Amino acid sequence: MAGEPSSFSLGEIVERLGGEVIGDPRTTVRRVAPLESATPDSITFLADERYSSRLGKSRAGAVIVGESARRATGIPRVVCADPHAYFARVSGLFNPPREVCPGSHPSAVIDASAVISPGAEIGPLAVIGRNVQIGEGSRIGANCCVGDDTRIGRHARLEANVTIYHGCTMGDRVIVHSGVVIGADGFGLATESGRWIKVPQIGRVVIGNDVEIGANTTIDRGALEDTVIEEGVKLDNQIQIGHNVRIGAHTAIAACTGIAGSVKIGRHCRIGGASGIAGHVVITDHVDISGYTAVTKSIDRPGRYSGVYGFEPHARWRKNAVQLRHLGELAERVRALEKKQAQKKRSKS
Amino acid sequence: MAGEPSSFSLGEIVERLGGEVIGDPRTTVRRVAPLESATPDSITFLADERYSSRLGKSRAGAVIVGESARRATGIPRVVCADPHAYFARVSGLFNPPREVCPGSHPSAVIDASAVISPGAEIGPLAVIGRNVQIGEGSRIGANCCVGDDTRIGRHARLEANVTIYHGCTMGDRVIVHSGVVIGADGFGLATESGRWIKVPQIGRVVIGNDVEIGANTTIDRGALEDTVIEEGVKLDNQIQIGHNVRIGAHTAIAACTGIAGSVKIGRHCRIGGASGIAGHVVITDHVDISGYTAVTKSIDRPGRYSGVYGFEPHARWRKNAVQLRHLGELAERVRALEKKQAQKKRSKS
Amino acid sequence: MAGEPSSFSLGEIVERLGGEVIGDPRTTVRRVAPLESATPDSITFLADERYSSRLGKSRAGAVIVGESARRATGIPRVVCADPHAYFARVSGLFNPPREVCPGSHPSAVIDASAVISPGAEIGPLAVIGRNVQIGEGSRIGANCCVGDDTRIGRHARLEANVTIYHGCTMGDRVIVHSGVVIGADGFGLATESGRWIKVPQIGRVVIGNDVEIGANTTIDRGALEDTVIEEGVKLDNQIQIGHNVRIGAHTAIAACTGIAGSVKIGRHCRIGGASGIAGHVVITDHVDISGYTAVTKSIDRPGRYSGVYGFEPHARWRKNAVQLRHLGELAERVRALEKKQAQKKRSKS
Repeated sequence: MAGEPSSFSLGEIVERLGGEVIGDPRTTVRRVAPLESATPDSITFLADERYSSRLGKSRAGAVIVGESARRATGIPRVVCADPHAYFARVSGLFNPPREVCPGSHPSAVIDASAVISPGAEIGPLAVIGRNVQIGEGSRIGANCCVGDDTRIGRHARLEANVTIYHGCTMGDRVIVHSGVVIGADGFGLATESGRWIKVPQIGRVVIGNDVEIGANTTIDRGALEDTVIEEGVKLDNQIQIGHNVRIGAHTAIAACTGIAGSVKIGRHCRIGGASGIAGHVVITDHVDISGYTAVTKSIDRPGRYSGVYGFEPHARWRKNAVQLRHLGELAERVRALEKKQAQKKRSKS
Repeated sequence: MAGEPSSFSLGEIVERLGGEVIGDPRTTVRRVAPLESATPDSITFLADERYSSRLGKSRAGAVIVGESARRATGIPRVVCADPHAYFARVSGLFNPPREVCPGSHPSAVIDASAVISPGAEIGPLAVIGRNVQIGEGSRIGANCCVGDDTRIGRHARLEANVTIYHGCTMGDRVIVHSGVVIGADGFGLATESGRWIKVPQIGRVVIGNDVEIGANTTIDRGALEDTVIEEGVKLDNQIQIGHNVRIGAHTAIAACTGIAGSVKIGRHCRIGGASGIAGHVVITDHVDISGYTAVTKSIDRPGRYSGVYGFEPHARWRKNAVQLRHLGELAERVRALEKKQAQKKRSKS
Repeated sequence: MAGEPSSFSLGEIVERLGGEVIGDPRTTVRRVAPLESATPDSITFLADERYSSRLGKSRAGAVIVGESARRATGIPRVVCADPHAYFARVSGLFNPPREVCPGSHPSAVIDASAVISPGAEIGPLAVIGRNVQIGEGSRIGANCCVGDDTRIGRHARLEANVTIYHGCTMGDRVIVHSGVVIGADGFGLATESGRWIKVPQIGRVVIGNDVEIGANTTIDRGALEDTVIEEGVKLDNQIQIGHNVRIGAHTAIAACTGIAGSVKIGRHCRIGGASGIAGHVVITDHVDISGYTAVTKSIDRPGRYSGVYGFEPHARWRKNAVQLRHLGELAERVRALEKKQAQKKRSKS
């Protein structure tokens, strides 16, 4: 990683990742770049054939294109099934994640009962509790806290300042960003004479393989049973996941979404940012929710659902917002008009 | 806590918590469980008499029921006034909070002027500032930072990675979850020639007894006077509380709610998740706000208030959302129709 | 700072900050206070001439007023162009930020390659990575983590528990509150056979001079190019800023706002709390967005925009919310009524 990034020829790239070179396979690139700012030592990609005219102006040394754009340019190119996914993999060649340096920093505070793979890295000032297990090739960042009895799989990566409470489990290749809190108590309250009583939160958080969790996201432990994030789920930043939630495999959720307790979300769903999902809602597989949508009841059919009501210049918005408060009455007035019109028609005939 | 949880007979339970046993008081249970998955060594509860038919299928060893369901099952049972609250207390018997281990971890950095009760526990790598006071039986988790001159009461619990700024105070039995930030500067800005000037934030945060604060919630210090969270308030995760806010005793606020500066919320309120309360709004006691509601003006009468506009399949939503932009005009058109109809009527008579 | 705050006469204040004293310039004040609770040793301010009657009841020793209120009271006063901004500066005299104590706490873990100004302060248990540069007069709080190759300017202040990833840069006089995460990976995903592939996030976060960032706010690094926060931007708490966003100079954003990837916001904008801005939206300079508004498309004209739909008592809200689901149909029914009315008119003439 020192100094310059490594370089790859198009021939080397397709050898590793598949696809077909058109043009000189010895064309060498040193970095990935967006179409607009690509330089002759960069490889870029064309996400959508409709933008192929932009290739004319690009100074890119090479480009990744889909099948239908194989003749859209004279630039040396790699033809593949999915240019965006292929580009992600090429970028991974040029930008591999930092390697794990096995061993524990002397400043880390590690309980003697913890079982840490000799192939794992524990960063400075991390705190590892009793009976914690950490698998081979995993990296625990600086200032992380891992609670008693928690298990972390292999090749996981916890960035700096992650907090995991006791008794949680996490699969292989999980990535957790800074500020994340996993396993805090859910919001479980009973009332008694006008005061709140805390309901002990005794479930765990169980996280599958290949999950990624964005910065400052929080996932509460279950009340009685577990909160479960299935494999391949991708969570963006500042998401809140309440107790007893289950999120199905390969679902992706954008930032700032709040998911209340006991919600079940299916597999392969996509939830837009700043959405809210009310308690106990059940969402089936393959559902897309637009951003800024409040999901107040269950969804049992795949498809796209929306509930965001847009914005206007302030003066126009005021007129509409005021009327929204009288919408029930407006509907009644329209009904009355329809009735009178119908009566008149009848009285004429 | 080692190995198996302890066990209690129903007789022992009512001796500690009150209520009446029906069936064999020697019936012994070892854990709490939900109705559906309870096993013969579990005690469960029936929250609502309407679900009493579910008791027929339950394998629970014992059940907590309300007065009206005392004959709803043959399972050994405890009859009490409020089954949910009672269950919370029974769960507390089986799952007591981890005991405090008095003393300071050698890796903690504690200013010599701090006054820490010999009965308090300071976790690894915690940082305790000048003149901090920490009361008996309190536990400060790993990697917490407590700023200068802050006072924490007795039997408080700060989980790992909590940050409290200087000069704040916190009552007894307060629970603060990881990632919480208390006492950061409020968003106080003045403008001068198109640039922002910072208004020093010199108030404190004052937190009463028995408050619980969820993961990654933030409570800003007051601008000139204090931000106050009264006793018994329960805050879920990722809530933002601006400067000079006052939250009345025994109010509960669900996750992701944003409360702007100088808001006053009464006692015994319940605020749903992902709500927003605009600056300087005053809300009286005993107000319930539904989730995902924007509270843009003050509320002076108890009751429930809502403002969430739901979602639809995308195509139907589009039709409605477009019309919302013309709602003011639609109302005018209805008025015009009504006027013409009235004219016609008048011209006939 | 020990014990009592220092005191200033009005004469000393105008000597430092400009303005004109009316009344005895030897009048001495010891603190700033709000109008209502000011005591004879306090100086307060009158933000708005309309409230000048309140001055009659104030016990304040002195007051800051605008030109038009110069005769509104007999209290000794400072007349200036902008009382709020002036008050902020006076408060700064009485409440200067804690001074930086140059040097590194022995418990901090600092890589040997880091270049830290001898005039900078590194707090306890901070972790400073490889090749980090920290400028003169900057303070890094307790438990902060600064990633490899990151550069922090002069007189910056990172409160406790801030996390900055590798390779970011930050200007002079930047203030970052606790729990902030800068430079985490953006939410960059490609799909391949129903699974998500991570797109490496190789841009940086670049933060200008005089930026302030509130507690638990997150700013993602760019995917290919940089995420940029220009000078003088003020961000409140719990804001999420996605990858490749650019925020123009002197824009202020209130708490809980989510800004999706590749958004461009102009200079001198004001964004209300709990707003959401959809991906790739472009907002021009001098735009104000009301709180709780979803900005779903670009804005190319300055002005104020709103999209919050208020709340109602629950029963009334239900009636309106139900009708919103049929708004498209309601509009069609009104069109039908209009058409029939027009036909009748035509058939008569």
